[in-house]
Amino acid sequence: MAQGINLAIVGATGAVGQEMLKILEERQFPVNELILLADPREAGARIVFRGESFTVRGADAEAFKQADIALFAVNTEISQVLAPQAVENKCTVIDNSYAFRLDDRVPLVVPEVNPNDIDWHQGIIANPNCSTIIMVVAINPIHLAAGLKRVIVSTYQAVSGAGILGLKELEEQVRAWAAGETKNPEVFQHPIAFNVIPHIDAFMDEGYTREELKMVWETRKIMHAPDLKISATTVRVPVFRSHSESITLDLEKDLTPEQVKNILSQAPGVVVQDDPSQNIYPMPLNSSDTDEVYVGRIRRDISGERGIALWAAADQIRKGAATNAIQIAELVLNKNLF
Amino acid sequence: MAQGINLAIVGATGAVGQEMLKILEERQFPVNELILLADPREAGARIVFRGESFTVRGADAEAFKQADIALFAVNTEISQVLAPQAVENKCTVIDNSYAFRLDDRVPLVVPEVNPNDIDWHQGIIANPNCSTIIMVVAINPIHLAAGLKRVIVSTYQAVSGAGILGLKELEEQVRAWAAGETKNPEVFQHPIAFNVIPHIDAFMDEGYTREELKMVWETRKIMHAPDLKISATTVRVPVFRSHSESITLDLEKDLTPEQVKNILSQAPGVVVQDDPSQNIYPMPLNSSDTDEVYVGRIRRDISGERGIALWAAADQIRKGAATNAIQIAELVLNKNLF
Repeated sequence: MAQGINLAIVGATGAVGQEMLKILEERQFPVNELILLADPREAGARIVFRGESFTVRGADAEAFKQADIALFAVNTEISQVLAPQAVENKCTVIDNSYAFRLDDRVPLVVPEVNPNDIDWHQGIIANPNCSTIIMVVAINPIHLAAGLKRVIVSTYQAVSGAGILGLKELEEQVRAWAAGETKNPEVFQHPIAFNVIPHIDAFMDEGYTREELKMVWETRKIMHAPDLKISATTVRVPVFRSHSESITLDLEKDLTPEQVKNILSQAPGVVVQDDPSQNIYPMPLNSSDTDEVYVGRIRRDISGERGIALWAAADQIRKGAATNAIQIAELVLNKNLF
Repeated sequence: MAQGINLAIVGATGAVGQEMLKILEERQFPVNELILLADPREAGARIVFRGESFTVRGADAEAFKQADIALFAVNTEISQVLAPQAVENKCTVIDNSYAFRLDDRVPLVVPEVNPNDIDWHQGIIANPNCSTIIMVVAINPIHLAAGLKRVIVSTYQAVSGAGILGLKELEEQVRAWAAGETKNPEVFQHPIAFNVIPHIDAFMDEGYTREELKMVWETRKIMHAPDLKISATTVRVPVFRSHSESITLDLEKDLTPEQVKNILSQAPGVVVQDDPSQNIYPMPLNSSDTDEVYVGRIRRDISGERGIALWAAADQIRKGAATNAIQIAELVLNKNLF
C-alpha cells in the first residue's frame, strides 16, 4: 500500500480511458504498476503517464493477474466478458459500462451520494450513466432536505458522450459545412451539426430510450429511492463536451429557492453558479475540463405546489465517467476494500 | 377586394419580414399595393416581390394611409410607437412584437387554436411568441380532448430567434473555430457555437426570463385557460433554424399515447412524426422551411399519474412568426374584419 496499488485501465485508448490517465496524474493516485489494456488490435500503442511511456496490451484474463484494481472504460459487451475474468483473478473492477449497474449484487456508486454502498461489493462496483451522475449530485442534497416526489428532466447532451467518434463526427460535419460540403452521419442517426436529436441509445418499451430509462432506474438505485417518480427526455445537441440538464422537482416539504441555494452551496461536488443579473449560470463551455456539477437557474417551479426548477451542467467525461470512477477507486483504497 | 388589399410590411428587411414576403408569394396572398417599410436608415433598399422590384420606405404614420393591413415585424419599442399610428390611419395591424400581446383589448391569435378571437379586434391583433405558438399548436388538441392540468416545457431554440444577427453570430463563431480563431459574442450573452445558453430575453422576477414567462402568460391567453399551470425553461442551442421543445403534460382525463397520436394526426397544423423504430421524430433539420408543427416521441409520462410526454419542433421564423401572421391576415381578409 505504501508503494501504491497495481492499477489496470481497460479501454486505455478511448475517450474515457484517456481522461482517466489525466485524472490519475492530477489527483496523484498512488499507482505502483500501471497496466494499460485495450482491444488486441490496439496492442503495442504507447501512452505516456507521469513522463513514462507505457505499452498498451490486448485485454485478456491473464492481464488482470498483476492488478489490484481495474478501471473499465469499454462497452457493455466487453465488460460482460472481461469483468468476471478480472474478479476471478482477484482484481476489483470499477466498471463504467451498463453491464452490471442494475445487478443487485453490484453497488452503483456516486461518492457524493452513496459512498457506503461500496462496502458490500463482491468484486465489481458499477459507475453510473453520465447524465445520471450529474443529476444525482445536484438533486440528492435536495432529496435529503425535503424529500423528492417527482423528477422531470430534459437533457442537452454533448457528442463526446458517444466517445471520440462522436466528437469527430461533429467536428467533421462542421468543417464540411464551413467548406460548403456535407458529411453524412455515421455515429449518430442524423446529422448533428446545427441540429438536435431526441434519441440517445436504443428505443425500448413504451417509447423511452435506454438512456432515458437509465436515468430512472439508476437514480432510484443510487439514491435508495426505489419508488421515486422520474421521467426523462434525453437529447443530443451539437456541443463537444459537457452535458446540461433542465430539471423540475416536486418536493414533499416546501423549500424556498434561497434554501435550495444554501443546501447546494454546502453540498459535496456541487458549485452553485446562479447570478442571472451577471449572466451567470451553468453552461457546457464553463464546465468542461472540471470535476464539479454546476447548478443554477434555481427558482420555484411555478407550475407545481412545492416545486423547484434548476439547470445543471457538468463535464460528462470527467464527473460523468472518469472522475467518478477514480473517486470510487480512492474510496476502495481508503477503505481497503480491494 | 377582388383586386386584393393594400398591404404594408413594417420591418421588411429583417429575418421575419423577408420570410413574410416569401410566404405571401407562396400562398398567393391577394396583394394589391405592397408597401415595404423599415428603419428610415434602410429607406431606398430594393426588394423583389413576385418578380417586381419595390423600394423600401422609412416607416412613419403617413405610410399607413394607403394600407388596409400592416404586418409588423419589428421590436416592441417600435411597434408601441407605430402600431397606434397605423390604427389611427384605419390600417389593421398584425403585430409580431411583445408590445400588445397581453393587452386585454388585443386578441392574441394562433389560427389553429383561437381563430374566433380576431372577431373582437379593435385595430391590432397580436402574433404570439414563437415558442408559444409551436407549443399551443401541439398541446391545444390534447387540452380539448382531456383537459390540461400542468405543462412543463424545456426548449431548444435556434439562433435565428434572435434575428439575422443571431444567425450571423453562430455562423461567424463556427467559421472562426474552423480557422483556429475565436469570435467574441455580441448578440448572445456568451459564445453560442458548441455551447447552450439557458437564457433568452431578460431576467424578470422569481428567476424566470421573459421568454419563459411569455410561454406561461401567452399560452393561457391563447388557449383561454387563465389558470393553467405552466413552467418553462428556455434555452438557446447552436442550431440555425427551428425550435424544439420537450413537453410534459399532466391531464385531467387519461389518454393513451395511441389516443394522443390519433388526436394530433387530425389536428390542424400538426404533423405526427413518431416512428422510433425508423429513427423518425421531429428535429430542427427536417422542420426548417415548413409551416407545420411536428410532434413525436409521444409516450406516457412515467413520472405522472395521467401524463403524456412529447417532443415538438417547428420553424420558428415561419410558423413561429411569419406564417402565423399571414394566416391571421388571411382570416382577417376572409372575415372582412379590416
